[in-house]
Amino acid sequence: MNDRICVTYEYHGTGPQEIADFVRVEQSIEFPIDLAPQWIQDEVVGKVEEISSISDGVYQISISYPAGNTGYELPQLLNVLWGNASLIPNLRLIGVDLPDSILGKFRGPRFGIDGLRTHFSAPTRPLLTTALKPMGSDSKTLAEMARTLALAGFDLIKDDHSLANQPWSMWRERVELVSRAVKDANEITGKNCAYAPSLNLPFDQIHEAAHTAKALGAGSLLVLPGITGFDSMRTLAEDDSIGLPIQAHPALLGSYTSSPTNGIAHGLLFGTFARLAGADITIFPNTGGRFSFTPAQCREILDHAQRPLGHLKPIWVAPAGGMTLEKIPEILQAYGKDCALLIGGALSRGDLATNAQAMAQAIQ
Amino acid sequence: MNDRICVTYEYHGTGPQEIADFVRVEQSIEFPIDLAPQWIQDEVVGKVEEISSISDGVYQISISYPAGNTGYELPQLLNVLWGNASLIPNLRLIGVDLPDSILGKFRGPRFGIDGLRTHFSAPTRPLLTTALKPMGSDSKTLAEMARTLALAGFDLIKDDHSLANQPWSMWRERVELVSRAVKDANEITGKNCAYAPSLNLPFDQIHEAAHTAKALGAGSLLVLPGITGFDSMRTLAEDDSIGLPIQAHPALLGSYTSSPTNGIAHGLLFGTFARLAGADITIFPNTGGRFSFTPAQCREILDHAQRPLGHLKPIWVAPAGGMTLEKIPEILQAYGKDCALLIGGALSRGDLATNAQAMAQAIQ
Repeated sequence: MNDRICVTYEYHGTGPQEIADFVRVEQSIEFPIDLAPQWIQDEVVGKVEEISSISDGVYQISISYPAGNTGYELPQLLNVLWGNASLIPNLRLIGVDLPDSILGKFRGPRFGIDGLRTHFSAPTRPLLTTALKPMGSDSKTLAEMARTLALAGFDLIKDDHSLANQPWSMWRERVELVSRAVKDANEITGKNCAYAPSLNLPFDQIHEAAHTAKALGAGSLLVLPGITGFDSMRTLAEDDSIGLPIQAHPALLGSYTSSPTNGIAHGLLFGTFARLAGADITIFPNTGGRFSFTPAQCREILDHAQRPLGHLKPIWVAPAGGMTLEKIPEILQAYGKDCALLIGGALSRGDLATNAQAMAQAIQ
Repeated sequence: MNDRICVTYEYHGTGPQEIADFVRVEQSIEFPIDLAPQWIQDEVVGKVEEISSISDGVYQISISYPAGNTGYELPQLLNVLWGNASLIPNLRLIGVDLPDSILGKFRGPRFGIDGLRTHFSAPTRPLLTTALKPMGSDSKTLAEMARTLALAGFDLIKDDHSLANQPWSMWRERVELVSRAVKDANEITGKNCAYAPSLNLPFDQIHEAAHTAKALGAGSLLVLPGITGFDSMRTLAEDDSIGLPIQAHPALLGSYTSSPTNGIAHGLLFGTFARLAGADITIFPNTGGRFSFTPAQCREILDHAQRPLGHLKPIWVAPAGGMTLEKIPEILQAYGKDCALLIGGALSRGDLATNAQAMAQAIQ
């Protein structure tokens, strides 16, 4: 393969050879191939590597592109993989094989599984994480919740993904009060609980907000790459002057996975892309919860989050939605111990402190 | 409605009331509603406004949310409209009604239809636009192409959306050479042809690149909001120190529209969202071209691009893909004159200068 990316698509329909020929041109020169100079036809346009029939009317098409087409940058890599191809019906991106020339340009997750095990003094157990809710609560109330959760022994407490600059709780005030509450709790417990404010903020405020969050004592960051872009996360992860663990939230990304015959495979989107963009923890809706990922799709995310990917560290999976104390064994059975248990609303049914302590004891 | 957003979803399935109740909570507090304080249940959680049956097993569900939930910022507005809802199967976002309190926070397109008519001295005709291709060409070759196209009378010449920092043509060099060639041509023609370099660049380089492009003489910008985020475009559009016309390209956005029962309606995505984010021209694949938008979907984009939206200017549509000289009448019939004709590869079949001049004469 030399210095090439190999991309595999699933195609539902007839004429797989025609689609393959269309895609290899569309995803490279987007120009009548016969009009391109011969060397561009040979060295820039994608090559069809393999077409195989999976079942009646379903084909796998593998196309390779020169690594240089991506400019070794994430936005253009995503463009080569899925830019205009996203507009082709009945085509789905299911596999990406990246050469070292590309992987070497990415730092990937700063902490990954081992890094967060050290960071949270959790040599073998799963991580315990939660979100500050509900929207409408004022910053003081959310800070008191955070204090209670940190005292109970939670590792990570994130903003609910929908918290931004709402009138009830503005970002700056919330980050200040919650960070202080968690810091106070850590002084009592001797632990390293980290608060992750959401960076779903205006484009030109994201990096400054990350630095502000760090200065105010936040110990982690929450990023919504479906809204602010995967590359916003990468630049936050690679910035040594920030250096905080990053959680990726799936908001807006569901449209890439909701159709079985279009979009991007779950493992690539929530596993591979999240790692390229530097997430240490990838959040996605667990099977059997409020959404509809199948057990196989969740296993695919787990696989892509933790399998070898050049020098990029494996990362934590956070299967979310409808978590309760009773479900812990089932989740650990499905995902193993390199799993961030994300429990939300259920903690508030009854006494928060009691529930939080019970969760923390259960995972020790 | 007072100060509320009204959002309409199409749902394919059974139990529309249950789905509506799920969505109104999921897209606001994402928390067991019975555990939320009464005032949050009343004033923060979404309200189901209407459920109507469209056909067997198809329902329209309208839910309103307080405008304050969006924080009056685009990333959180997108999150309220479609964040976790994107993960719900068989649900599609089809309508958004925004109050003035939100629309007033957006500047929208800087030029819009009238602004670009003045800018390009085109009081009644369509605009004539093209892209520099194919990838693999060096910057000098692309600059010569641009000179030829500008001399022929094109209004806008954009980077092909796949041009980034490839070894054959690095961004900085390309922008310098192409801008200069277009400037030279403008001095000869007395026209105002604008070159639009692509800003599909690393997150932390986008704004600096826009300023560099302007300093080097680029007269427009190309943004890929599906990759760098809609809010990257908004901040570029609202920056008075840039002040250039912006074209939005649909790369990666196709997954939002490829499934008839999931995702976001064409008009909202390529019309309303593009305008909120400040695009002056919205590019999308024309019906009958290489992709699969239907005539009705294209009309919906036209409608949303140009219908009233608070104080936000109407914008140009650029139906792309497979354009030829012969198709101009058909396209103008379908879209009217407030249309940016985007012709690509066909210009290079035969002599570029001759073809370009013929196109320019045809639209005068």
